[in-house]
Amino acid sequence: MGELLARSAPDDWRTPDAANTLYLQLDSGRVVIELAPDFAPHHVAAIRALARSHYYDGQKIGRVQDNFVVQWGDPATKGITVPALAGEFSRPITAASSFTVLPDADGYAPVVGFTNGFPAARDAQGKTTWLAHCYGTLGVGRDIDANSGSGAELYVVIGHAPRQLDRNGTVAGRVVYGMEHLAALPRGSGPLGFHEKPDEGVTIRSLRVAADVAATERTPLEVLRTDTPLFAQLVELRRNRADEWYKVPAGYIDLCNVPLPVRVSAPTPPG
Amino acid sequence: MGELLARSAPDDWRTPDAANTLYLQLDSGRVVIELAPDFAPHHVAAIRALARSHYYDGQKIGRVQDNFVVQWGDPATKGITVPALAGEFSRPITAASSFTVLPDADGYAPVVGFTNGFPAARDAQGKTTWLAHCYGTLGVGRDIDANSGSGAELYVVIGHAPRQLDRNGTVAGRVVYGMEHLAALPRGSGPLGFHEKPDEGVTIRSLRVAADVAATERTPLEVLRTDTPLFAQLVELRRNRADEWYKVPAGYIDLCNVPLPVRVSAPTPPG
Repeated sequence: MGELLARSAPDDWRTPDAANTLYLQLDSGRVVIELAPDFAPHHVAAIRALARSHYYDGQKIGRVQDNFVVQWGDPATKGITVPALAGEFSRPITAASSFTVLPDADGYAPVVGFTNGFPAARDAQGKTTWLAHCYGTLGVGRDIDANSGSGAELYVVIGHAPRQLDRNGTVAGRVVYGMEHLAALPRGSGPLGFHEKPDEGVTIRSLRVAADVAATERTPLEVLRTDTPLFAQLVELRRNRADEWYKVPAGYIDLCNVPLPVRVSAPTPPG
Repeated sequence: MGELLARSAPDDWRTPDAANTLYLQLDSGRVVIELAPDFAPHHVAAIRALARSHYYDGQKIGRVQDNFVVQWGDPATKGITVPALAGEFSRPITAASSFTVLPDADGYAPVVGFTNGFPAARDAQGKTTWLAHCYGTLGVGRDIDANSGSGAELYVVIGHAPRQLDRNGTVAGRVVYGMEHLAALPRGSGPLGFHEKPDEGVTIRSLRVAADVAATERTPLEVLRTDTPLFAQLVELRRNRADEWYKVPAGYIDLCNVPLPVRVSAPTPPG
């Protein structure tokens, strides 16, 4: 894969929009999240506004459940109420929708593939599309009511893809850099990985929209485009590994096993 | 799922054989591994012998690659050579082979299911069977040569199931308890998650066969049997979530998403 990426052209990469990029700053380093306004416009707007109000700053990552999710954000700690939003679990497919089909069959959806770098799915009729829950997916916490999420409580998948969550929750983005700062957090001691002891859990130093951060303090990233011949080659390379170590190529790849390469596009990123 | 397990009978559970159970002791706690001698008899025998020689004790977990594996064991640090073994990547299906089919289609194998609690697969002709690489799987490291593994170097999957490894490596067991002690380890700073700095990486305090540990010092575990009506109910409950939170049941479950419950069968386990 390294060799293939070394042959990539500048056009094979894109720079995420700073207005749709979040920096989640922990003591251990920076987690960079790309938001998905095409799929969750209202939640993304709410998350952006909450970040700009510094709502997430100082909150604890209050849940770390092994092989499932990390989760943070509690309006009560800030003494505020955040308005609930209608769930954005799927959206209509329009003529403008970009979608690169992954030819491999998927058990959870009739058609899967990628939309602007996000693992995604479609229904059999080609009417609706939604983002899939893979490792690194950013989701919106909610209660029983489908329309009770607000963006005040967020989670990131840190285990085997919990695809059963697809179309049951709003996916707002995905981690593109620094995932290890979330995945390696100590697991919570309580049921479902919730922290129960006062000294448990790391604190979010800040959560900022990249556009609000001085250019010199940004992490300059490029993500590989998923609508290119190069990406199709990458998928094929992973579907049938050609390197000598592999004796039996799988002949298949599942959606959440497809790597989505990200590179730092300047020599010395901060954070 | 909790309610279903609360209704389980004693016969729905089995106690892993202490001779096929490993205790990997870290400063943070104990990881319990059940070995799979039915699938990898020679590697399991070699691992057991290495554990009894205290070979793994004091070794560092030298690789922690995010969303992939942790890995340990280097004969050079002990000044020994461990004999290579023929790969045990799959084995013939015999009349005695237990296999509970998971009806859900799988992209990586024609038939998947469970053998004595291990996620497993079969070929279309019903001639061979192998263990699948899921979260928590214990695998044997090897070089390019398929027959270069020895048990001296082991890995555990800590990310989304790398099913492309199926039939390419020897699976020797799976973690049944304490997985968080491996999954939450700080990631290695070098390529492929290898630790490159001398102060990186935790040290294995000891790795013991449970049968060699005093009965009072053992972790008394029971694992849910996978060949029972109760287990079939559990799979169905996860395939189509009945709880109110879910609005769109998946109608499907992938092999590595099926929970394999384990319970502590005595009130105060050590470790």
